[in-house]
Amino acid sequence: MVEASKYRVFEREWSSRAELFNTYLQTNVQELLIGAPARLSDAILYSLMAPGKRLRPLLVLWASEAVCGDFSPAMPAAAAVELIHCYSLVHDDLPAMDDDDLRRGRPTCHIQFDEATAILAGDAMQPMAFELLTKGNPSPEIAVKACRLLAKVAGPTALVGGQSDDLRAETEVGDSDLLASIHARKTAAMIRVSVELGGLLAGATQEQLKHLSVYGQAVGHMFQIVDDLLDVQGDATIVGKRTGKDFQRGKLTYPGFYGVEASIVAARDYTSKAIRALESFGKSGKTLIQLAEYILERKH
Amino acid sequence: MVEASKYRVFEREWSSRAELFNTYLQTNVQELLIGAPARLSDAILYSLMAPGKRLRPLLVLWASEAVCGDFSPAMPAAAAVELIHCYSLVHDDLPAMDDDDLRRGRPTCHIQFDEATAILAGDAMQPMAFELLTKGNPSPEIAVKACRLLAKVAGPTALVGGQSDDLRAETEVGDSDLLASIHARKTAAMIRVSVELGGLLAGATQEQLKHLSVYGQAVGHMFQIVDDLLDVQGDATIVGKRTGKDFQRGKLTYPGFYGVEASIVAARDYTSKAIRALESFGKSGKTLIQLAEYILERKH
Repeated sequence: MVEASKYRVFEREWSSRAELFNTYLQTNVQELLIGAPARLSDAILYSLMAPGKRLRPLLVLWASEAVCGDFSPAMPAAAAVELIHCYSLVHDDLPAMDDDDLRRGRPTCHIQFDEATAILAGDAMQPMAFELLTKGNPSPEIAVKACRLLAKVAGPTALVGGQSDDLRAETEVGDSDLLASIHARKTAAMIRVSVELGGLLAGATQEQLKHLSVYGQAVGHMFQIVDDLLDVQGDATIVGKRTGKDFQRGKLTYPGFYGVEASIVAARDYTSKAIRALESFGKSGKTLIQLAEYILERKH
Repeated sequence: MVEASKYRVFEREWSSRAELFNTYLQTNVQELLIGAPARLSDAILYSLMAPGKRLRPLLVLWASEAVCGDFSPAMPAAAAVELIHCYSLVHDDLPAMDDDDLRRGRPTCHIQFDEATAILAGDAMQPMAFELLTKGNPSPEIAVKACRLLAKVAGPTALVGGQSDDLRAETEVGDSDLLASIHARKTAAMIRVSVELGGLLAGATQEQLKHLSVYGQAVGHMFQIVDDLLDVQGDATIVGKRTGKDFQRGKLTYPGFYGVEASIVAARDYTSKAIRALESFGKSGKTLIQLAEYILERKH
C-alpha cells in the first residue's frame, strides 16, 4: 500500500465499504442464479467474488454519497458495473484474446473451469447487470437512463471496441491516437460511467453530473496510465497478475509510447483535473478526491 | 416451402414484413455502430444481416399487431430480440462450443473473421439490444419492464443456462428432464419473451399477456422439436446449416430421445395448445395462429 500513515483511514474505509458491497453483490447475484446450471453458477461466482479492489462499484457508491450523502440508492448500479467489468475480464483472458492464466492472484475462469464455461459465464453476467439495474431503482425514468448509460459503455463504441482496438494494436504499428482511443474506450469510459451512475441514482442535477463526468473521465485515464506503469515496474506477487506481459505482447501502452517519466507527468495532470472538477462539491467531494490521489500513488 | 397453395399469402406477408424489419434493424444498428472499430462493426453486421427467417422479431411485431393493430411500437423490441438471438448463435458456433463452420448458408463469424472478433461481436450485440430497448419506447415504465424481461431470458437461468446444459448433455447420459430443460431454457423462453414483448409494447392487459405467454411457450417448444426433426430428416442445402450434426455430437434431441413419430405427435399437441391460447383474440390472433401452423409444417 502507499505511505501507510497518509492513507490509513482511507484504506480502512475502502475495505469496509468493499465488504458491504461484496455482501450485497453475493446475495443479489445468488438470487439471480437460482435455477441456473450449477457449473455455470460456480464459474460466475468464482469470477465475480475473486478478491478485487472493487474500484468501479466503490466509485458508484462514493459518487452517490457525494451527491446525496447516502450510498444505498446506488447499490444495484454498483453491482451492475462490477458484473460488466468482471464479464469483460473473463472474456479478455480467453485463449483467443489475451490468453491469460492468472487473474486477481488465481487461475483465470477458463483455466479453473473450461473455455466454453468461461464464455458462457461472461455472456450471462451481461444481462444480469441489466436485470439488477431494473430492480432496485427509485423511478422508472432513472432506471431507463441508467440502463442506457450502461448499455452504451458496455457496447461496441466503448468497452468492446476498446478490446477490439487493443488486439489490433498488437499486430499493427499503433500511434498516439490509437493509444488514446484504447484507453478512452476500454477503461476511462467505464470508470466515468461508474461515477455518473452513482450521481444519477442519487438524484444529481445536470450540473453535478457534468462535474462527476469530468472527474470520472480524468480518473479513468489516470488509472490506466498507472496500470500500464505497474505492468512495467510492478511485482507479480503484489499486482496479482502477470507483469511485463503487455510489453511482451507488444501492447500499446502509455510508458511504451511516451516513456515512464512522461507517463507519470500525465497521470499527475489527470489527477489535478479530476480534483478541480469536484470543487463545487466542497466537503462532500472529499472521498472522491482522496480516491484519485490514492490511485495515483497505488502500487498494485 | 410447405404446401405452396395454402401458405402463399402468409409467406408473402412474412417476406414483406421481414424486409421492413431488416431495414429498421440495419439502420438502427449502423447508428449504434458509429465510432466503433471497423472490423468489429463488419463482424456484427455480417452476423446480424445474414439471410434469416427473422422468426423472433416477427413474433414481436405480430404479437403487437394482435393487441393494438399496429407493429410499429414494437420495432425496437423486435431488433433487440434479434440482437440477442444473433449474439447467441455467434457464440454457440465458436470452436470451444458447438464448433460450427456454416450458419444461415454462410461461413460462421469466427470463420469469416477470427475467433477474438467473433467473441467480441457477440459481446457487443448484448448491450446494443438493451440500448435499443431504452430508446424507442413509449413510457419509462414499459421500457424498464421490457429490459427486465429481456435480461431475464438472456441470462443464466434461460438462454445461457440452456447452452450450458446443452454442452453438458453431450458428455453425460441425459434424461427427459434435462431435454425438457434445455428446450425450455434455450429456445422456448426466447420465443415466449418475443411474444410477450410485442404484447407489452402494444399495451396489452395482464389477461392478454397471459394468453400470449402460453402461446409463445407452446410455439417455442414446438419450434425446437421441429428443428430437431429437421436435423434428422432435413437436407443441408435447404436447411442452410449442417444436418445430422446434433446426432453425430450425441446431442440430446427430441427425436433422439422419443423417436420421430412421438416427436411429431408432441409438435402437433403444442401447436393445438398455442392456437387454443389465442381464442380470446378472435380475428386479431389470425396471423399468430397461421404462424404456428406454418412452423409445424416447415421444411427449413
